[in-house]
Order: sequence, then C-alpha cells, then structure tokens
Amino acid sequence: MPKIDSVDFFYLSMPEIQDIGDGSQDALLVRISAGSEIGWGECEASPLVSIASLVCPMSHSACKPVIQSVINQPLNGIEDIRSIHRTVRENSLDLLQADHTLSGIDIALWDLLGKLHGEPVYRLLGYPSAYPKLPYASVLFGDSEQETYQKARRISQAGFRAAKFGWGPFGRGSVQDDRSQVMAAREGLGKDHILLIDAGTIWGDDIQAASDRIQVLQECHVTWLEEPFYNGALSAYLHLASLSKDVQLAGGEGSHNEYQAQHMIDYGHVGYIQIDSGRIGGLTSAKRVADYAHKKGVTYVNHTFTSHLALSASIQPYAGLEKDFLCEYPVELKPLAYELSLEHLIPDHDGYIRLPEKPGLGITPDLDGIKKYLVDVDILVNGKRLYQTPILK
Amino acid sequence: MPKIDSVDFFYLSMPEIQDIGDGSQDALLVRISAGSEIGWGECEASPLVSIASLVCPMSHSACKPVIQSVINQPLNGIEDIRSIHRTVRENSLDLLQADHTLSGIDIALWDLLGKLHGEPVYRLLGYPSAYPKLPYASVLFGDSEQETYQKARRISQAGFRAAKFGWGPFGRGSVQDDRSQVMAAREGLGKDHILLIDAGTIWGDDIQAASDRIQVLQECHVTWLEEPFYNGALSAYLHLASLSKDVQLAGGEGSHNEYQAQHMIDYGHVGYIQIDSGRIGGLTSAKRVADYAHKKGVTYVNHTFTSHLALSASIQPYAGLEKDFLCEYPVELKPLAYELSLEHLIPDHDGYIRLPEKPGLGITPDLDGIKKYLVDVDILVNGKRLYQTPILK
Repeated sequence: MPKIDSVDFFYLSMPEIQDIGDGSQDALLVRISAGSEIGWGECEASPLVSIASLVCPMSHSACKPVIQSVINQPLNGIEDIRSIHRTVRENSLDLLQADHTLSGIDIALWDLLGKLHGEPVYRLLGYPSAYPKLPYASVLFGDSEQETYQKARRISQAGFRAAKFGWGPFGRGSVQDDRSQVMAAREGLGKDHILLIDAGTIWGDDIQAASDRIQVLQECHVTWLEEPFYNGALSAYLHLASLSKDVQLAGGEGSHNEYQAQHMIDYGHVGYIQIDSGRIGGLTSAKRVADYAHKKGVTYVNHTFTSHLALSASIQPYAGLEKDFLCEYPVELKPLAYELSLEHLIPDHDGYIRLPEKPGLGITPDLDGIKKYLVDVDILVNGKRLYQTPILK
Repeated sequence: MPKIDSVDFFYLSMPEIQDIGDGSQDALLVRISAGSEIGWGECEASPLVSIASLVCPMSHSACKPVIQSVINQPLNGIEDIRSIHRTVRENSLDLLQADHTLSGIDIALWDLLGKLHGEPVYRLLGYPSAYPKLPYASVLFGDSEQETYQKARRISQAGFRAAKFGWGPFGRGSVQDDRSQVMAAREGLGKDHILLIDAGTIWGDDIQAASDRIQVLQECHVTWLEEPFYNGALSAYLHLASLSKDVQLAGGEGSHNEYQAQHMIDYGHVGYIQIDSGRIGGLTSAKRVADYAHKKGVTYVNHTFTSHLALSASIQPYAGLEKDFLCEYPVELKPLAYELSLEHLIPDHDGYIRLPEKPGLGITPDLDGIKKYLVDVDILVNGKRLYQTPILK
C-alpha cells in the first residue's frame, strides 16, 4: 500500500533575473516519494511564495498549509489523487496561493502513479493514445520590427510551421507600431505558416484599444489573438469576440481553477482555451477543462514557458484530442529551464513532437546539472525552521 | 509631496490555532508611512504567504514582489492609490497571492490618505455621508442543536436583531440534521429577527445537496443562504437561484478581484454580494463592486471575520448605500482580534453601528496590547535576509 512519504520543493533560479516577460528564468521543482518511487512536478511562479504556502502555520480550518493535506496519504490509484486534490482545495480554501502549489504537487502525483503502474500519464488520464502535436515556437516580440522579422526568419528556417509572438513592445505604443510588428512577424515567417499573437493582457479591459488592432491581424491571417484582456474580463472578451471575425480569441492561462477556464469558454467565447497545468491545479484540473472544452467545441492548447518537464505535463491533459493539434513550445529557454531535464521533446522531421511512451511524464530531472541553480531558502517562524532547502540528489 | 517611505507587515497570532472555521485566530497587520503620517490595513490569511509575496525575488517582468510597486511611490491623492493598485496587478500578474497582499496595502493607503487629507475614508471614496448599518451577529453553528439554540438566545438577548450561523456541522450530516440546526437557530433567535445561514462552500457544486435544504430555510424564513458552492461555481449558483424562491443566495467572499464578484452577480444571480476588503484588492476594488452591485440592483454586504480595523475597512466601500443596511459583525472574536484596536464599533441602543467620523478608517491599532501576539518571522534566500519581523512601536 504505497503512501506519500515526502513532499519536497526545490527553488531553482538563474543567477540573474531580467525584467522581461520570460518565465523560464526560475522554476519550482516538486519531488514526491511513495515507497521506492519518485514523482516530479513543477509549479508556476513565484517559487518562494509557493514554498511558504506549503509550510505556513494554519490560520484556521480552511486555511491550512498545503503539505498537511498531502503527506501520509495513500496513493494506490487515480481516486487517491482526486481525493488529495479535493482535500487541498477544502483545507486551503482561503489560501490564495494554494492553487499554484497544488498544481506542481498534482503533476508529481500523476508522474508517480504512472511509474507505480508502469503507464504514461496520458493513459492514466483516460486516453488510449497520444497524438503528435505541432509545436508553435513561442517567443517575445523583438524590440524593433527588424528584430521581430529576424526572429521569425530564424523560426521558419529552423523548421517550425507555427509561431507566436508576444509581450515586449506590443500594445505599449501606437496602433501603427503594432501593425509594423505584426507585419514583420508575418513577413519573416512566410505566408503559409501559422501566426499567433499574444497581447499579454496589455489592454486590461479596454475593448477599443484591442479592436483597433483587429484589422492588421486579419490582414496578416493571424489565427488567434491571445490575452487581449485580463484573465476573467469576460464581458470584454465577449464583446471583442463579436468584432474579431476570423481572428479567434485565445485565453485562460491565468485560470487557477477549472471554473475560471469554463467561464472563459461559456461567457468569454474564446475559441482557444489555454491552460497552464502548473497553475490551474495540475493535471486533475487541466483534464477536466480539456473534457469541457471538447464538449463545447473549443480548442484546448497548453500554456507553458518553462522546462520540458513542464512541457510534458502541459500536453498530457489533451494528448488524446487529435483535432487539438497545436502546442506551445518555448524556444528561447534560459539554460536553467533547458538543463532541468535529461530528455527533451524535440520536433521530428515533420515538425511534430510526441509525448514519451514511458511511465509517468517520461522526463527525468538532471539533478547534477541543475545543482548550480539551486536557491537556499530558510523560513523560520518563532525560531522554528519551517523550511530549509532539501538536499537535491 | 508625500511619498511612501515604508511598508511593514506584522504577523500576529494566538498562541494556539484551533482547527475551526474561525478566521480571527491570526492577523496580518499592514503599516505604511508617508512623511509623518501612518496608515494601517489588514490582509486576510495566510500571513506568512502574504509576507513572502511582499518580498520574494522577481521571477520575471509580470511576477515581481509586491513591495516593488508600492515603495517610493507618490501619495498625493486618490489617483495615486489607483495607480499603485494598477501597477501591483500588472507587475505581479502571475503571483497568485498578490491580490490578498495588495488588499491590506490598499486599505492602509486609503487610511493614510484620509489622515493626510483629514477626511474619513468613505468620503474619499465618494460618499457624502455614512449610513448606520445593522450588524448581524456572525457565529459558527454549535456542535449540537442545543448549543446552536443557546447561542441564538444569547445573541437575541444581547440586542442583536440579526444573526448568521455557519460552518461547524452544517452540511456535513443529513438533511434532517441540518433541519434541526436551522430550526434551533430560528427558535433561539425569535421569529422577528433576521436569520442568515452560511454553508461555507460545503456542497462544492452539488446542486441536489443544496436544494435539499431549501425547504427548511423557507419554513424558517431565512433571508439568505450563503456560499452553498465554491466561489465561482456560477452555473450551480444560477441553477439553485432558480429553485430557492424567497431565500436569496449570497456569495462572493472568495473573490480576489472585481471581475469575479461581477460574475457572481451577472452569471450566478446572487441577491447579496459579499466582499472581503482584505481579499478582493482592498477598498479600491471593493468600491468598484459596490458601484456595480448598486447599478445591478444587488445588495452589497461586507465580509469580515477579524478585527475592528478590518471591520471598519469592510464597511467603508458601501457606507453611503442606505438600502444596503446589513453588516457582518463577528461576535466570537479571539482576544487577539478584539485587542488589536483601541476603538471598537459597538452597536447603539437601536442595535446599529456607525463608522467613526475621524480621518482615515478611524481605528487605531493598540500596539502595546498586541505585542504579545507578534510572530517572529525570518526569510532568507541565498543567505540574504529578505524579511525579518519589524519592530512594532
């Protein structure tokens, strides 16, 4: 009868963090052991805050440290993961960060269960097989249109058949500036490739600012406009969806539970629902969103901007949905994020990537390689040490 | 030209935290100084996690420590608070806990601005005057119906004209158990008093479990059923609202931004929107919800279960809405929460409470009184001390 013996969080960071929209500069690696098996997961940022939510003192019955609902729980099957998932949400209802913390834990639990049962995670999630996904190269806009053009050229030459440009100067200048950037991306990429644009919530809920950019997106045959507004600005999404014609809206990465993702579908009318397994509550929550999106005719896409461990985790929830073939694939990873794993999901000669056919997530952390990125954290409360960075071995 | 010179967080806790639904067992007190003035605020739980989000290392451009968007900012007027509020949300977009952290900071900023301008906060928020509110005694269900009956009797005898019972055994046993509890509350309270029931999200999104309890709520003339479901389970709220007839639904306390509260109104059809200023993003966000609810004909109610500093902060956003006269008023506060402030909002002979007509929130922390509850916290990252409990004086 396997039970959860340990839950350890490792904060990894590049020596210097730049003030740019690149989420691969640090990572929070989660290790869970049950008997002789180990599972690995990853939480989205911020590492220190999620560590605090793992170990904080209880505030009241609905605000408990996350670890309390996980440690010593049985792990025989899928129902045990669901039970832990539910218990964390109940016991940490008033602890806002808990959903991000739960995410990495839930991912590690599925990885662990997969290893215990000798099955890839996607199969445990109910898919008979995993379809190949077409990775889109996910990059930041260049500071200038020339730089964006060059980036797009390089992506095309590297064999990618789809690319997404986002953040950077986009939305911060004039409509004309944005027009030049989008046209440079299209020109560099070539006319047959899929082009996606990510506004990174830059317009808040300003529908006019967003709709001013629709025309150039149409001219450049952009497939989706991502996050024009804050996650949850549903009426703004709905309004823009009615104006954007063949440019579909994409969003949902900020969702930290399955309800919020459903609302983006039901009330925001996004055409693509983007889910970060490291935020929404792990694979348990992400699979529910995939099922819901499938039922509603909305396309599921992963959101990920960190390691290939997180990449594998982000694809498992929709691995078996053949029609939902696009997949976010960060191509400007910082060394930390690339070196985090021994295996990588590399596009084949057709440009597709495939999930590993190995137990769990099929991705092994490179413990020797990442030791140099390990951050020492100490948290003391009334003289008692609640957290100290564990030994990574 | 006042600017923000310091932002300090103080974690206060009872010596022992019980595993009960009582949010008054700890507190996170926020002190902000600008020139010679000091403002005070309070964040909802968990204190350690919000402290971590204040000081954590940056992960990337949209995941910065909250303090970075606050310190050294100018504070001349209301627009400066709105600017800080917006900047925190942009700079900490991917830091989930940031909304709770921002809440206490925003409250302290309004308190501080009120003192700088010699005005009560409700007036800065745009209300010419503050109407008295009828406090409902907010308590946990007793473990037995006899205990609930006795609690209700005492509340009635103490002069309260409204009471809310919640959590404890409610929803955890049979429909018959809950019937007995609700009837005991009504009997103890007397037939003319306002009775409210709080299910504390116990039914998740199980509409049947909730609707099974509607009949006894109707028989007992319960004004609202609060949080039958998770915050954001909008379709479950909508469905139950169509079944619950003259028992209105109340919810929204878990909202950590104004969009989520609007969704509870627009898509969940709650009759009462309950906002915790210490969670939703402070008074800036709460006032926006109050304006929206007023426009939509939905009644605004404060949510608060901690100190009288938090109580004052929770009432300011709807102080000027005469028709929205009910007000949550915790009556089983732990000593820490009661002793936190020198002044208290005590019901008058008619049973009403009134906001202080003093600059800011009108509530002064009792620094000598609460010293004994102060928790020592140390957070070190790579040997650098990011947080140490400041001196409380």
